[in-house]
Amino acid sequence: MHGTPTADTVLVACAQLSLAVGDVAGNRAAADRAIEAAAAAGVKVLVLPELANTGYVFRDAAHAAELAEPVDGPTVTAWVEAAARHDLILVAGFCERDENGVVRNSAVLIDPAGVRALYRKAHLFGAVEKAVFVPGDERPPVVDTAVGRIGVMVCYDVEFPEWVRDVALRGADLLCAPVNWPLFPRPEGERAAEVVRVQADAAVNRMFVAACDRAGTENGVEWTGGSVITDPDGFPLAGPADETGESLLVAACALGQARDKRIGEHNDVFQDRRPELYDF
Amino acid sequence: MHGTPTADTVLVACAQLSLAVGDVAGNRAAADRAIEAAAAAGVKVLVLPELANTGYVFRDAAHAAELAEPVDGPTVTAWVEAAARHDLILVAGFCERDENGVVRNSAVLIDPAGVRALYRKAHLFGAVEKAVFVPGDERPPVVDTAVGRIGVMVCYDVEFPEWVRDVALRGADLLCAPVNWPLFPRPEGERAAEVVRVQADAAVNRMFVAACDRAGTENGVEWTGGSVITDPDGFPLAGPADETGESLLVAACALGQARDKRIGEHNDVFQDRRPELYDF
Repeated sequence: MHGTPTADTVLVACAQLSLAVGDVAGNRAAADRAIEAAAAAGVKVLVLPELANTGYVFRDAAHAAELAEPVDGPTVTAWVEAAARHDLILVAGFCERDENGVVRNSAVLIDPAGVRALYRKAHLFGAVEKAVFVPGDERPPVVDTAVGRIGVMVCYDVEFPEWVRDVALRGADLLCAPVNWPLFPRPEGERAAEVVRVQADAAVNRMFVAACDRAGTENGVEWTGGSVITDPDGFPLAGPADETGESLLVAACALGQARDKRIGEHNDVFQDRRPELYDF
Repeated sequence: MHGTPTADTVLVACAQLSLAVGDVAGNRAAADRAIEAAAAAGVKVLVLPELANTGYVFRDAAHAAELAEPVDGPTVTAWVEAAARHDLILVAGFCERDENGVVRNSAVLIDPAGVRALYRKAHLFGAVEKAVFVPGDERPPVVDTAVGRIGVMVCYDVEFPEWVRDVALRGADLLCAPVNWPLFPRPEGERAAEVVRVQADAAVNRMFVAACDRAGTENGVEWTGGSVITDPDGFPLAGPADETGESLLVAACALGQARDKRIGEHNDVFQDRRPELYDF
């Protein structure tokens, strides 16, 4: 854990889990254990990976459809109960069958009162997702919670600065992003490019970002294991995680700092924008 | 230098210089030496720092106004002659007195045919700039050159993803940014946040970026010395520079790679955008 909790800070965590595609019960148990551990550590905002109920590497669309759950299905219901029991906020990805039977790559924000927001990934990545999911058409939520305003998006979404700016301009103090980052080659000594982009997302908007990745491998796909929690300067408060395994990253975040968009006395990253010139 | 020049690559360089405010003749001589050295190394695109004619830390607006030069003044004229003599492209920042006598934080793109573009910084940083300059109201140029399409902006501009996206969508293969990054404290082992943002600018747009910073100190302001040339994955090809001194960073860049916005077979960072949802 980075930093010492104070009256001004809240413990934010990412549970970087190793999951197995198709093993919904096993994955739910892994999430349950992570929630218990986080709660025991005093965590108030816990992020779980993308598609935390099903795993990621589906055989095909039929496989995903068979595993998908409605938002009032067993997995999200279990998370709602856990959030209430432990008085914490959960942001977690899940494979959703929506009200029309359409399969979505979704995320929920749950607080002790229940599901506060449901988001459907708008930017789909790779062959699997494009074959399996219908993208969402709604802007990402920003939820006013007991600890601050939390924005939610999923994985590849955070690589579109327009999308990230959108939640920031709508007041997000903390962006929580369940992700599954497949491991790409990178030069020796370099951080994963995904982590670098998250750092920049935080810095240009002066907000906190918590991105929760996967550990291990799944059907031959190796995950980056790059979970990270950054401050509004874009520097990691926790992580990037050790890619070799599961881990719980915890950072004490003074979320109120994200309300101040100034850099020094003369700049403000929002007020310095020139939206009248952003003509594209 | 990173990589070996081939038929597909062009040598791009940043001349990270130590300049002195007010010493226009001395600064011009420093730039001349850097241009000579770069030309001797086979460089085809050379970036110089922001405000390379005057230095940065002006006493006040009157000081800057006294030093400012028109675009057909001695400094840019010398650069035009050098670019023609060496058959290279120069992107350099300069303190400009515009056609109405207004002082601007400007940059020029010069090729062997002369000044191809003049850009005036639209996002001003810090007390000095806000006191001294009037911001530009024009979008940043993208110039079709002999080696590829080059976008130009200045320093703090690159921290606005909207601005960077604009030149990328208009086809920039390479973004050249003269910068003067004042040194901010950062955690041990971390890269300067400015470098991280440049890496992300490159990666989310899959283009090359060359940011040319300053070395040394000036009137008590210490510069980051973070010059960097990144590839379209956002990984540094050259730099970040050694902050302790002047340096010429050279990278062999296959600029044509920036025409391909794909990630793998199923994604494209431009086609995957959802502009119909970017409603802000």
